[in-house]
Amino acid sequence: MTPLRINLEQEEIPTHWYNVVADMTNPPPPPLGPDGNPVPPEAMGAIFPDPILEQEMSAQRWIPIPEEVRQIYAQWRPAPLCRALRLEQALGTPAKIFFKYEGVSPAGSHKPNSAVPQAYFNKLAGTKKLTTETGAGQWGSSIAYAGQMFGLPVRVYMVKVSYGQKPFRRSMMQTWGAEVFASPTDMTNAGRAALAADPNCQGSLGLAISEAVEEAAGDPNTCYTLGSVLNHVLLHQTVIGLEAKKQFDKIGLYPDVIFGPCGGGSSFGGIAFPFLADKAAGDKRAANLRCVAVEPTSCPTLTKGAYTYDYGDASGYTPIMKMYTLGHDFMPPGIHAGGLRYHGDSPLVSQLFHEKLLEAVAVPQVATFDAGVQFARAEGIIPAPESCHAIRAAIDEALRCKATGEAKTILFCLTGHGHFDMASYDRYFSGQLEDYDYPSEAIVESLKHLPKVG
Amino acid sequence: MTPLRINLEQEEIPTHWYNVVADMTNPPPPPLGPDGNPVPPEAMGAIFPDPILEQEMSAQRWIPIPEEVRQIYAQWRPAPLCRALRLEQALGTPAKIFFKYEGVSPAGSHKPNSAVPQAYFNKLAGTKKLTTETGAGQWGSSIAYAGQMFGLPVRVYMVKVSYGQKPFRRSMMQTWGAEVFASPTDMTNAGRAALAADPNCQGSLGLAISEAVEEAAGDPNTCYTLGSVLNHVLLHQTVIGLEAKKQFDKIGLYPDVIFGPCGGGSSFGGIAFPFLADKAAGDKRAANLRCVAVEPTSCPTLTKGAYTYDYGDASGYTPIMKMYTLGHDFMPPGIHAGGLRYHGDSPLVSQLFHEKLLEAVAVPQVATFDAGVQFARAEGIIPAPESCHAIRAAIDEALRCKATGEAKTILFCLTGHGHFDMASYDRYFSGQLEDYDYPSEAIVESLKHLPKVG
Repeated sequence: MTPLRINLEQEEIPTHWYNVVADMTNPPPPPLGPDGNPVPPEAMGAIFPDPILEQEMSAQRWIPIPEEVRQIYAQWRPAPLCRALRLEQALGTPAKIFFKYEGVSPAGSHKPNSAVPQAYFNKLAGTKKLTTETGAGQWGSSIAYAGQMFGLPVRVYMVKVSYGQKPFRRSMMQTWGAEVFASPTDMTNAGRAALAADPNCQGSLGLAISEAVEEAAGDPNTCYTLGSVLNHVLLHQTVIGLEAKKQFDKIGLYPDVIFGPCGGGSSFGGIAFPFLADKAAGDKRAANLRCVAVEPTSCPTLTKGAYTYDYGDASGYTPIMKMYTLGHDFMPPGIHAGGLRYHGDSPLVSQLFHEKLLEAVAVPQVATFDAGVQFARAEGIIPAPESCHAIRAAIDEALRCKATGEAKTILFCLTGHGHFDMASYDRYFSGQLEDYDYPSEAIVESLKHLPKVG
Repeated sequence: MTPLRINLEQEEIPTHWYNVVADMTNPPPPPLGPDGNPVPPEAMGAIFPDPILEQEMSAQRWIPIPEEVRQIYAQWRPAPLCRALRLEQALGTPAKIFFKYEGVSPAGSHKPNSAVPQAYFNKLAGTKKLTTETGAGQWGSSIAYAGQMFGLPVRVYMVKVSYGQKPFRRSMMQTWGAEVFASPTDMTNAGRAALAADPNCQGSLGLAISEAVEEAAGDPNTCYTLGSVLNHVLLHQTVIGLEAKKQFDKIGLYPDVIFGPCGGGSSFGGIAFPFLADKAAGDKRAANLRCVAVEPTSCPTLTKGAYTYDYGDASGYTPIMKMYTLGHDFMPPGIHAGGLRYHGDSPLVSQLFHEKLLEAVAVPQVATFDAGVQFARAEGIIPAPESCHAIRAAIDEALRCKATGEAKTILFCLTGHGHFDMASYDRYFSGQLEDYDYPSEAIVESLKHLPKVG
């Protein structure tokens, strides 16, 4: 039998997260406030607890993972590293294709890797309640699960249009005991203002963020949680790459190229950064390693955006951060990979991409579903639309190998299953999915609205 | 860290299925035809291939699992044996609770354990196409997946009302390349007759079976597949219990009591029979082992049915089999555990229950969802409604242990995840789920319609 899954034992769950900042040539530029000066950590203390803020600002290479967090991780981690042998055979490629499968978590994606420590450190710091926003529901369900693990009540502001259209992610959150509200609500100033302006307002992610942040800022016992973009989130996600390295060690292989879907950048940073550590340490195996972020052509942040300071949210409430951005008021088309519809990108991923330690490629929507279906028919697992982006790029690489005869080792991050995305597959099969060209005019317009710095 | 998951390596996937018939004191009574005489295997040859018929009739203790099947099993097997530590703590019980988690398969349940070998043996025998029926879609999606693995086209007759109400299981089947038809169709005599009688006919499982069997019987290159009840299906499912035994060996424990949900009996037989083998072999650890089938009070086949000959289907097309039954025309209430709404039970489970080697208990619907939500909040995994029945019984046993102070080792089969059942959880949370008393009058009535034997 050809080995298909490389498992690790529970004790092999990483004991430390890897902080890529320690190995960066240039220190990350700080977030800036409205006055153009760096935002001091304590200014963020109204919505984040101290241990999270320390991680956000840390330059320490290894950050210990508390045993309490590892014990919850153990409900599904270590996640398997799988060989896509049947896909290789279907493609007729000499390449070896591996995927790290994060869909085995309770919420079905990589998101709990950060939700669990965020809930834990909040509990430790005395937080009594967590708030967050959610669109399609991946992050909301993950923090609902994580809050339940540590006995922390969770309130999720879910964009009203999604609340109605995606009822099953909402049911999932409620199963884990979270309160879920259709945003805008009448419980916050932001929500009331939106409803006063339009009683039928269907909400937006920006508005839901405003509601969740407002609730946290107004109550010293309540903190806010975010599922991507920020340094501490990418830190937590490095368990993905750290485990993958141990798994490759077990079979005596090392990847030549790594693909990950990239929206806010958390799962991509999570799988790529630990391999960059090898590069930084002069590990010869990593000398020619390529780490490629895969984004949608409809939201081509790294491939078509500007590297500059911009707001993290659509409304301009957050500090400004240096990152690749399409402009904070750029509204991407309604593609089915909702997790990749973010105007910006993680500042860490952005900087490393700018410094050419990471690469990026953009792929069109229909081709990602082609790849997802080909993968499902070979490997069984039905992937989330976000994950289909990495699969597309991995298949394209494997086909290049077929043409050149190269037996590369390809790794991609299968960030989640598609069980809550079958309506998207339906639209694909019925020919209703659209492709979007680079919406250059919209980007040109939104890039005119960047905040002034200094 | 307390070990939460006991894993096995890929090579530890069982090499043989266990056939409980070899250890039965009394040989199973044969299925009978309309003339009251045993049905010869060759009479079934029109719809089943020879290797499947051989397994159906076999009394050989160990049946080899082909390497091709083990290689497909390896896409998700060995399935983990998990310790429900947080559930134990939430209950405050001295009992140890373990569950064998079958939701890790591509289709999300134990069903592929039999779908894969059924597809394989059909391929081996030269079958060119498979047909089946499906209600909620668990079996249909499993055989769609399995057919795809061996390049066999699959045609699924899906009850029309489910086709409309459960579109996502249908999308899943299509993702794996199956053709799915809303039954009744105009492609079979059975379907056309139903449509002639009522052009708006919403279909039934019995009618869908008729269509799938008719297509298979009418084409020598097409065979029919069934997902439960029959001996060969239970045989394939013994991988569940065989793995669980190896996993308990690894931690030096042995279960005192095993709970499994029981509809047609395949997952329950799958987890219980390999432990009955220990009993048969005089293994002292198994001397007091209890294996308990858990069924819904609304469809209490083992606990309230008659042990007699009855049809396997609602329409009386199949041979009659000796089993516990509520009468083939008993229509169970529309509970959400669709997989447990079967009027009869596997003949093997029925006989072993009759011979007091197995036990049974019935639990009401709302209490099963109470248990499912309590489990999800402790362990993360959201269980299928069928699985919630076993969880209910396991929690009840753990609470009895709390009262008595016994530190029993409890094992239950978590047959699948509930990702496609969130609408049922919605109804539970909104208080719309009903309980049903034993519907004794309906049973008394349907038991009047049993076929005459001899």
